[in-house]
Amino acid sequence: MSQTPTTALSRYTETDVYYRDRNLVKDILAPGKNADFVSVAVWHMLGREISDGERNVLNAVLITMMEHGFTPSAIATRSIYMSAPENLQGAVAAGLLAVGSSFVGTVENNARLLDRIVKAAPEDREALAAEIVDDHRSRKAPLPGFGHHLHKPVDPRALRLLEIAGENGLDGEHCAALRLLSRVLDEKRGKPTTINATGATAALLGEMGIPVELMRGFSVLGRTAGLIAHIAEEQQRPSGRFIWQLVDDAIPYEADDGGEKKR
Amino acid sequence: MSQTPTTALSRYTETDVYYRDRNLVKDILAPGKNADFVSVAVWHMLGREISDGERNVLNAVLITMMEHGFTPSAIATRSIYMSAPENLQGAVAAGLLAVGSSFVGTVENNARLLDRIVKAAPEDREALAAEIVDDHRSRKAPLPGFGHHLHKPVDPRALRLLEIAGENGLDGEHCAALRLLSRVLDEKRGKPTTINATGATAALLGEMGIPVELMRGFSVLGRTAGLIAHIAEEQQRPSGRFIWQLVDDAIPYEADDGGEKKR
Amino acid sequence: MSQTPTTALSRYTETDVYYRDRNLVKDILAPGKNADFVSVAVWHMLGREISDGERNVLNAVLITMMEHGFTPSAIATRSIYMSAPENLQGAVAAGLLAVGSSFVGTVENNARLLDRIVKAAPEDREALAAEIVDDHRSRKAPLPGFGHHLHKPVDPRALRLLEIAGENGLDGEHCAALRLLSRVLDEKRGKPTTINATGATAALLGEMGIPVELMRGFSVLGRTAGLIAHIAEEQQRPSGRFIWQLVDDAIPYEADDGGEKKR
Amino acid sequence: MSQTPTTALSRYTETDVYYRDRNLVKDILAPGKNADFVSVAVWHMLGREISDGERNVLNAVLITMMEHGFTPSAIATRSIYMSAPENLQGAVAAGLLAVGSSFVGTVENNARLLDRIVKAAPEDREALAAEIVDDHRSRKAPLPGFGHHLHKPVDPRALRLLEIAGENGLDGEHCAALRLLSRVLDEKRGKPTTINATGATAALLGEMGIPVELMRGFSVLGRTAGLIAHIAEEQQRPSGRFIWQLVDDAIPYEADDGGEKKR
Repeated sequence: MSQTPTTALSRYTETDVYYRDRNLVKDILAPGKNADFVSVAVWHMLGREISDGERNVLNAVLITMMEHGFTPSAIATRSIYMSAPENLQGAVAAGLLAVGSSFVGTVENNARLLDRIVKAAPEDREALAAEIVDDHRSRKAPLPGFGHHLHKPVDPRALRLLEIAGENGLDGEHCAALRLLSRVLDEKRGKPTTINATGATAALLGEMGIPVELMRGFSVLGRTAGLIAHIAEEQQRPSGRFIWQLVDDAIPYEADDGGEKKR
Repeated sequence: MSQTPTTALSRYTETDVYYRDRNLVKDILAPGKNADFVSVAVWHMLGREISDGERNVLNAVLITMMEHGFTPSAIATRSIYMSAPENLQGAVAAGLLAVGSSFVGTVENNARLLDRIVKAAPEDREALAAEIVDDHRSRKAPLPGFGHHLHKPVDPRALRLLEIAGENGLDGEHCAALRLLSRVLDEKRGKPTTINATGATAALLGEMGIPVELMRGFSVLGRTAGLIAHIAEEQQRPSGRFIWQLVDDAIPYEADDGGEKKR
Repeated sequence: MSQTPTTALSRYTETDVYYRDRNLVKDILAPGKNADFVSVAVWHMLGREISDGERNVLNAVLITMMEHGFTPSAIATRSIYMSAPENLQGAVAAGLLAVGSSFVGTVENNARLLDRIVKAAPEDREALAAEIVDDHRSRKAPLPGFGHHLHKPVDPRALRLLEIAGENGLDGEHCAALRLLSRVLDEKRGKPTTINATGATAALLGEMGIPVELMRGFSVLGRTAGLIAHIAEEQQRPSGRFIWQLVDDAIPYEADDGGEKKR
Repeated sequence: MSQTPTTALSRYTETDVYYRDRNLVKDILAPGKNADFVSVAVWHMLGREISDGERNVLNAVLITMMEHGFTPSAIATRSIYMSAPENLQGAVAAGLLAVGSSFVGTVENNARLLDRIVKAAPEDREALAAEIVDDHRSRKAPLPGFGHHLHKPVDPRALRLLEIAGENGLDGEHCAALRLLSRVLDEKRGKPTTINATGATAALLGEMGIPVELMRGFSVLGRTAGLIAHIAEEQQRPSGRFIWQLVDDAIPYEADDGGEKKR
């Protein structure tokens, strides 16, 4: 059998519960501490205390990830909630499954590019950025972290997230790498492309040393809150049946042979 | 077609994004505000500002829901992460699907009992509590919100959550109803039964006027953070393959006819 | 520790794989047998061989459950597939989460009614059916298994499923109980209400002695095939982005105070 | 707005339901036809009739995918079922989320290799196979479709699936490409490596012209049946609580600093 793994996340006795090396009740939830969910959650994930500046930046990232309107994710959550309201967790789970390559996955792809630039010697970074931009342009591939279908020329959320990093002492090499990519991209295209919210998120999480393969977790956590808000609204202003009828009416039948439309 | 529903959750323009009636960048994430994810998320869900006391209590509830060790939920998340590490969101979704009737559902069942007691005239509450306890005992049904397989005679988390409610001015009628049920249950059984963490959670969320059918959302949000911590640990100390082999080795084959065990 | 459970589902050696007591390769997939997935799957689930008649009926049930057009289930699957096409299983999982109380759950609720009638003495069944119908009508609750928003006065699928039961020697007491409920309901309402496909499914699965709590599994299996067909079509005729824009455009913003619509 | 998509999957009227261009009740479920779920489902997915030989091969593939014992997939399903037995669909969905890159994804990766070989001129195939094998060996990457942790030197399922292809007139270029890869791999390693069941599945689905990106759907469909069997057994012989305790007891606490084990 493979070696026995261990866990540092929690243990319990008859009288006490520990999260990592802290007593949940006596340390974390101790009187006067007013423990903060985000701080405790990220300490629990990363195994290290986060600074006040990191907490501010993480709060901003989570808030930005929370809500994006009637996206595929929210549509899935509302459709499932309408079908199985006894099963709130299923509706959230369905919506979370949208946190994949088409949208949020670009955080990780951008973060990998930033990592490459940060790991290069300072004098080589400009050339590396140029190489990355050329490579994407020659493949007509979108550069992860840049561009937005609506917010042109500027995604206001990305701009603000980078400011917040600066206000909290976290405007370091990853943010610089993102701005370098941005400048090189603009020069080569001859016109500006916005840094989007996923690009800014990649830079900010990179500043905190969060592993690339864990970054998606922060999108998932922020989005979970937003999907619960959609369910709360669905309980008051149900939209699931409307969406069903709207979609069913809007997409006509057409036989595979492209023949007559029968409905 | 059914009437068109509306949404109050968000809207956007080319230059701005709004959450409810607030500008995400200029209001919520404005300089100096250090916006707090929990406060913004719950405001977004409920459509009303929460007080400082409510924020403290909600943080405590979310932190308590976050981690419970190698539960079925965490086992599912780790098993799925091992199978499809490219889909972190799928591993979280799998674990969230455990937030159902066997464990977390008791929050809602307890909350409904507390609601009944709170809605009764004060002079009728003791009799109603007795009726509720008798009904469950006669059916040999566990009273939701009471009892714990490990933490006897006291679940330290429940005790602390109720204290936190008191420290933050939220020890009201729902907490009183929970204590009333507890006293009546102990008297009728002739021995103490612990109030558990789901019972305390039901009382605290009830104090804030959170609808019973939305309460599960707070368990889901807290648990999401915990499952991400399990994934973060799985990335460092993989357990999925160990769990697979452990379980496969431990459960022997036995034919339906109860015949010889063949492995 | 609780007692060690056992499994009768499968075992394996270095050279052989067994499903229950049969060798997968040498027995089930043996030359000339042309093993049938539905027969093997249901034998595997139930632990008993199914008859030719049962196989025909189960095939008809699974085919009927497979496709229902652009339902909330299919909309969820397509929305998730668009967001995470690398994760086909996530798109299917999202759509399956719709197999809940609002639609498919009525199979189980109807099946429980049929079970009650079948377990009654023959001379008491008419009165019991009347009691069940009166109870639902007095609560203004829909009678599970009856009524359809579109197919009036007759759901052609239900009619055909019951015929198929007859053609295959499975038109027994559960089908009779369903027809009894139908007759009593029509008499009391003074006009006909269709037996719907979930009602017929409940009767047919009941005839085979399939436990009520497992019945939903057959809806899930049939629906899985349909959702894969939706994904196959989404690969050729993508609709996810269209649905997103359609829904987002159709649901206007309206502040909680019912104030001016801002978009 | 993007162009309106169309659907060829289904349409309905007040009196009739159509799957593609066929009337569900009058054509597909017509008397004497004894419609077969697998045939109808695959016709529905692919938009073309399948031959008897294809049906036999698909049945064999689906049956082989169905059951693999107490895998991470089955463990997740059983853990979730224990937690939320009211949501059978959630337990299936959780288990399906395991159908990802670590196991089933190798079907697609192998299929892409076979496609490359089949598309090459016959005289170039041996060299291409050598190039593919060398490339994987130089990267120490496992060759998708080959090797099995238990079944050595031969995976009996793979062997049988390829035989079934031959018995049904489907042993064509994709099967030949798989055997070519196998021979080259054995020569270069100097010892035999088994073709595994995912490799054989890739070849068989390739013979039918099923698109690579849809192949995972067949694993999902087969596995769905297997997970329902696990739930059926869980209803009779519950294992969820046992698995929980087993895993929780087996994985000790160890602080991040590698310090003393505290439990």
